[in-house]
Amino acid sequence: MTVRAAVAGASGYAGGELLRVLLGHPGVEIGTLTANSNAGQPLGALQPHLTPLAERVLEPTTAETLAGHDVVFLALPHGQSAAVAEQLGPDVLVVDMGADFRLQDAADWERFYGSPHAGTWPYGLPELPGARAALAGTKRVAVPGCYPTAVSLALFPAYAAGLVEDEAVIVAASGTSGAGKAPKPHLLGSEVMGSMSPYGVGGGHRHTPEMIQNLSAAAGRRVTVSFTPTLAPMARGILATCSAKARPGTTAESVRAVYEKAFADEPFVRLLPEGQWPATASVYGSNAVHVQVTHDPAADRVIVISAIDNLVKGTAGGAVQSMNIALGLPEELGLSTIGVAP
Amino acid sequence: MTVRAAVAGASGYAGGELLRVLLGHPGVEIGTLTANSNAGQPLGALQPHLTPLAERVLEPTTAETLAGHDVVFLALPHGQSAAVAEQLGPDVLVVDMGADFRLQDAADWERFYGSPHAGTWPYGLPELPGARAALAGTKRVAVPGCYPTAVSLALFPAYAAGLVEDEAVIVAASGTSGAGKAPKPHLLGSEVMGSMSPYGVGGGHRHTPEMIQNLSAAAGRRVTVSFTPTLAPMARGILATCSAKARPGTTAESVRAVYEKAFADEPFVRLLPEGQWPATASVYGSNAVHVQVTHDPAADRVIVISAIDNLVKGTAGGAVQSMNIALGLPEELGLSTIGVAP
Amino acid sequence: MTVRAAVAGASGYAGGELLRVLLGHPGVEIGTLTANSNAGQPLGALQPHLTPLAERVLEPTTAETLAGHDVVFLALPHGQSAAVAEQLGPDVLVVDMGADFRLQDAADWERFYGSPHAGTWPYGLPELPGARAALAGTKRVAVPGCYPTAVSLALFPAYAAGLVEDEAVIVAASGTSGAGKAPKPHLLGSEVMGSMSPYGVGGGHRHTPEMIQNLSAAAGRRVTVSFTPTLAPMARGILATCSAKARPGTTAESVRAVYEKAFADEPFVRLLPEGQWPATASVYGSNAVHVQVTHDPAADRVIVISAIDNLVKGTAGGAVQSMNIALGLPEELGLSTIGVAP
Amino acid sequence: MTVRAAVAGASGYAGGELLRVLLGHPGVEIGTLTANSNAGQPLGALQPHLTPLAERVLEPTTAETLAGHDVVFLALPHGQSAAVAEQLGPDVLVVDMGADFRLQDAADWERFYGSPHAGTWPYGLPELPGARAALAGTKRVAVPGCYPTAVSLALFPAYAAGLVEDEAVIVAASGTSGAGKAPKPHLLGSEVMGSMSPYGVGGGHRHTPEMIQNLSAAAGRRVTVSFTPTLAPMARGILATCSAKARPGTTAESVRAVYEKAFADEPFVRLLPEGQWPATASVYGSNAVHVQVTHDPAADRVIVISAIDNLVKGTAGGAVQSMNIALGLPEELGLSTIGVAP
Repeated sequence: MTVRAAVAGASGYAGGELLRVLLGHPGVEIGTLTANSNAGQPLGALQPHLTPLAERVLEPTTAETLAGHDVVFLALPHGQSAAVAEQLGPDVLVVDMGADFRLQDAADWERFYGSPHAGTWPYGLPELPGARAALAGTKRVAVPGCYPTAVSLALFPAYAAGLVEDEAVIVAASGTSGAGKAPKPHLLGSEVMGSMSPYGVGGGHRHTPEMIQNLSAAAGRRVTVSFTPTLAPMARGILATCSAKARPGTTAESVRAVYEKAFADEPFVRLLPEGQWPATASVYGSNAVHVQVTHDPAADRVIVISAIDNLVKGTAGGAVQSMNIALGLPEELGLSTIGVAP
Repeated sequence: MTVRAAVAGASGYAGGELLRVLLGHPGVEIGTLTANSNAGQPLGALQPHLTPLAERVLEPTTAETLAGHDVVFLALPHGQSAAVAEQLGPDVLVVDMGADFRLQDAADWERFYGSPHAGTWPYGLPELPGARAALAGTKRVAVPGCYPTAVSLALFPAYAAGLVEDEAVIVAASGTSGAGKAPKPHLLGSEVMGSMSPYGVGGGHRHTPEMIQNLSAAAGRRVTVSFTPTLAPMARGILATCSAKARPGTTAESVRAVYEKAFADEPFVRLLPEGQWPATASVYGSNAVHVQVTHDPAADRVIVISAIDNLVKGTAGGAVQSMNIALGLPEELGLSTIGVAP
Repeated sequence: MTVRAAVAGASGYAGGELLRVLLGHPGVEIGTLTANSNAGQPLGALQPHLTPLAERVLEPTTAETLAGHDVVFLALPHGQSAAVAEQLGPDVLVVDMGADFRLQDAADWERFYGSPHAGTWPYGLPELPGARAALAGTKRVAVPGCYPTAVSLALFPAYAAGLVEDEAVIVAASGTSGAGKAPKPHLLGSEVMGSMSPYGVGGGHRHTPEMIQNLSAAAGRRVTVSFTPTLAPMARGILATCSAKARPGTTAESVRAVYEKAFADEPFVRLLPEGQWPATASVYGSNAVHVQVTHDPAADRVIVISAIDNLVKGTAGGAVQSMNIALGLPEELGLSTIGVAP
Repeated sequence: MTVRAAVAGASGYAGGELLRVLLGHPGVEIGTLTANSNAGQPLGALQPHLTPLAERVLEPTTAETLAGHDVVFLALPHGQSAAVAEQLGPDVLVVDMGADFRLQDAADWERFYGSPHAGTWPYGLPELPGARAALAGTKRVAVPGCYPTAVSLALFPAYAAGLVEDEAVIVAASGTSGAGKAPKPHLLGSEVMGSMSPYGVGGGHRHTPEMIQNLSAAAGRRVTVSFTPTLAPMARGILATCSAKARPGTTAESVRAVYEKAFADEPFVRLLPEGQWPATASVYGSNAVHVQVTHDPAADRVIVISAIDNLVKGTAGGAVQSMNIALGLPEELGLSTIGVAP
């Protein structure tokens, strides 16, 4: 079976990375590519690394150009996906790489995004409890945010197993591609090279309610999250340092046992051998998640650190993984756990 | 008055940065420069950026070569400073840029460094309560570690004012120069460029007891610290993200008022205007500390983020600042708050 | 057909990259992996990005461990390949990623490498005139150096077509992985980040005679090369800026026509559209070569710029491309022209 | 004597760097700072590294705001300097950091800049033959371009001494700050980190006629230049690799003798010891120029490589050096040859 896939928003970083992944997927034929202001240009002028697609010309994003595909990936600014999805009809698999359908709570959406809530679609983080069942056969997928992917995978086993208290503290470093391709002064190479800086401090980052949603579901109760994202001088990668107070009885051994069990059968998550800590370089360009966990006896906290490629497992790879499940394909098809390093 | 200063360990990063700072100090004449395996070489072969000192030849580190100076800076591997200091006699100002004399608790020292405790010298972080008095006129200074500098300056006002609970959570990103100049595979450019990675996770980093010492002193009670250092793809800079649970009644306003008061008269610490967060690039090459603070109402935590240059305020600049105080010179002499950016 | 491949020197950058490429090759089964000082360690401790091979244990490099394979790749220090190859026998395909068998002129070898010449094997740059014929069915392949790959592909069409005079001037920037994984002070991240520096200036770099050999063969006469390599603050990639005085009658149009023809059927070389210049990021992680060419009318020089990934087309990908030809497999099998960007 | 200096264009990279240099100049008082779209903002919001000036508010760029200063530095888009200078009157020292008054040949200007030629001012590269005399006492200075600074200092001694033939080949790598602070997609951190790319290839870069002007003056005859600039993944620095065919009789020794003599009394140019090559990191943040030279006997070319900080010696430091000469101050006042490294 070959499915025909369209990509709306092919000139940005998410769209470009999706094409890179799809080019290696044996069950997908790449169909229409669309853009907004870049429509009419050859892809090679905008994504010169996608050599095999260099001559492809970008079309405008309309119901007509996106028609006739089995799968349509949406890499659009938030607020635009609902209208496009409606026009595509209920039989087309629509994978939304934006935020529109991630949150279950309309009030959360409105507070963090400042617009009416469009709804909630099955959440494309297959490793979460129950997620695969919800994704199987679905025609709508909400791809998670990059930070929530890294953080939820790091912490859900601790919450599901009752290892930690309800208040999680997370500091994550992200490569600059997470901020997109629209040029802004603070994203210039001159500004970011050689510099670390935080943003969205104090609970204001839009990915915060998504983390709370996932961890609360795992815990079975409302969890609070203190989340501080930082911009790191690298193009890709997220390193999430997550911790929470240990519950009585939690030890390094009990923590490790929980994580070994949680990820034993996961094709993309690797709990590293004891003493080896994740590095974002190791998952560069891959759908792998590297995780390590320990218990700090003096501070009595469980520390979990995860590394992902924000554009792959955090966006495009996660999208394809969910597509595979939705279409009944092998989950790992077209996805790699091999990083490009050094 | 001109003081004559010797630098033991002039071929490493700490020694080189100290020379860079001292070259701009109007009250210091640079005397003997020593090294171990690099003795006999011209400084220009090892520190080519120090153009005015390029022809200076490194001497071996002995009591004889270091004799005849008013100040001797020690940038030596830990465990070596006590013997050198003793030979220099009680009238020479000895500024130890290593760890040997930072900790007050001998058991802490032995546990983290695995060797007998050499003693405790006045602690060279002038901004801490009582520190200036202890430094004035002293002949011995223990320069703080780079992480403890960034973290203690970020959190001591909150602890001194009783704003937060006793358990601090700190995640800090450091440039690679903090790891020194001895070549190791994981510090190769090929490994660190494009990668974030943690190390010393779970309470094992040697700077942890130093942070606890400083914050406990500020709080007047024993504070615990969960400290995770990460290696960032940049040569210099520390960004420390610090937080602790707010005590009842703490608000964004009360937090800000405490920090404004704490740093109002500090020449090197700048509390940024509300809404502006620190970036390590802004303090690159300078002795400045940029700090911002807020209260996350949802997580009910106080978040403080500080940025320093690990080699300047975190090492060589801090050493010179303390030297100024010890010698009765103006504290700011030869030190700059102007970063080199972009 | 599945061929069984061994890799001698699997713990270094060339060996690691070869494994990354081979993991994506549908016709290769990865057999024995060997190392020297790292023998006995699991690959995951040394190459953590190769997640699927993390549990593989490195064996010592001996005739016994390397026996029983169809192909043996040698990623060894120069001077060691001849002895190993002899022990493997004439029926095993030996692909040498080192320098030992690249040069035809024994005097060149001895002058640049300071040891006796081991011989000359078919040269693994299939795009050069006559190269594919020499590689078909061979049991011995000398993989070109990374710089000669970038430079020869950029300039051979100009020399073969008689567009330029005999004196080529080349300045190339390379990522640090080209210098290998052995830790040296000047390769530390602290040293290379934020810095450009030349090395081997004045004709001393060992890749110079290899370039001269290739370009002279294309020209049919002895060509001279002024080659200056520079170390760039990036892990991967070579950007080669090559130029030579135009011969009378050469124009931008005639140059372009020659290059269009030269690369029209090459699967891995892309002459970019007019006005678009190569960037190393576009070929990151891929076997693609991006080339652009022009004629500077004021200086009357032909300028050709090529970009490759030094570890892929410049080493491991080039090795696999030649292996495919030697074994009669499709030349493109297991190799990609899709860069990992941004 | 203290001179009062205004800076027009204080929110960009050139203006910010000029302020950094001026803050360390003992003879300058910083007066009015102006901007265009950023007028009304505090400098700390735009140049947070200039801690001592953080509260200064930017004014609009008008004759009124710039009046009443001894020196006015113009860091404006090209084409705007002439009108401003005229309004300031003939008695104010005007230092133009833009291109408007660099070229002597009106036809060159019109061809490369596409607008009418504004005139020619004394050229602010004091190390060139005759330059200091022209700068002494002048009220108008044209600060050179960053590339022409690096290239002219590297090659003028060879041309002045008749060591080389008339055709120079130059490949230079520049940090991204040379492209300014206006956000453009190809200057995003995500694009430039990990990538080398050329631009303005084939003679089109606007700095080319400026190099030709300087080298032709040194040679006493018309020189041609093949100039290829490349963008390197670093914020600052230019590494210029320059070469030309040796004239008969030129040897490594004769070349070195010429360069030793040329730079013997230059306060900012250092000819490195034989065998040591420049690195941009060594001059980071300083007004130093590091140069090395050799003769490649096989290619029979003289190779000269220079490293500068594009924002200091290439822009702001060069401007202040010329200001010192114009005002009769010591040439080195307020300028440093100490790089910030690592």
